[in-house]
Amino acid sequence: MTFGMHRAEAATKLRNARVGRLATVRPDGRPHVVPVAFAVGPDRSDDGQGLRVYWAVDSKPKRSTELQRLRNIAAHPHAELVVDGYDENWDRLWWVRASGTSATVDDTDERAVAINALSTKYRQYAAEPPSGPVVVIEVDRVVGWRAAA
Amino acid sequence: MTFGMHRAEAATKLRNARVGRLATVRPDGRPHVVPVAFAVGPDRSDDGQGLRVYWAVDSKPKRSTELQRLRNIAAHPHAELVVDGYDENWDRLWWVRASGTSATVDDTDERAVAINALSTKYRQYAAEPPSGPVVVIEVDRVVGWRAAA
Repeated sequence: MTFGMHRAEAATKLRNARVGRLATVRPDGRPHVVPVAFAVGPDRSDDGQGLRVYWAVDSKPKRSTELQRLRNIAAHPHAELVVDGYDENWDRLWWVRASGTSATVDDTDERAVAINALSTKYRQYAAEPPSGPVVVIEVDRVVGWRAAA
Repeated sequence: MTFGMHRAEAATKLRNARVGRLATVRPDGRPHVVPVAFAVGPDRSDDGQGLRVYWAVDSKPKRSTELQRLRNIAAHPHAELVVDGYDENWDRLWWVRASGTSATVDDTDERAVAINALSTKYRQYAAEPPSGPVVVIEVDRVVGWRAAA
């Protein structure tokens, strides 16, 4: 047996995860996946709809993979982020996948919201806020799964 | 500064990782990513070329995500698997990405090789070998990255 997860629990697990793995599609149609630090924006509704996931290009010399992600979402805005817990006891496995549409954040107010969410979650960003582009995933689907009840 | 990783070290980290996150592309072009138990097949060359990554649909009632992965690779055979180490000290971050072409394993001998690799790595598969389809990723590119030397 496997079990689904209520959307509110899935949203909480997404929010609390320290790292996610972000899948995008390259301009040529091949998949691309990298670990990513991210933060979920403030929830603006009671039912957890309208989640916004933010990630940023930090202040270090831009890595080619960060640029690749930006090229990918310019060509194919769809993105999927997975967070999960691996355990050698496979009855404890779970994952939450959030999918949606990516865009770079141009609005100054939203950029501040995103930087605040990232800085609250990660001390590295509190010490040195990311100076590069910030990307939002407007989540249209969250799915959670666990191996056992 | 960030640092690359020698291919042999990247291949070792890939081989030893307990879980990967597998990105594929849905028939409609959107990305799909899920955690996956996997094993690297026996290395047949000195330089680590020709890596083959195996994952399987296990014996439990087939989950819709497993079927989704099979549908995806039937439509778009390209796949990318990432393994990584998250650490709150971001100087310790690393990842290895392996990309290539997926196919279900129909050859009986290769299926035995794959099941053996999976069963050697995971006690769950040793106790109950996967009875569903086995998928191979013929890796054509391995890239490793670490945050610090």
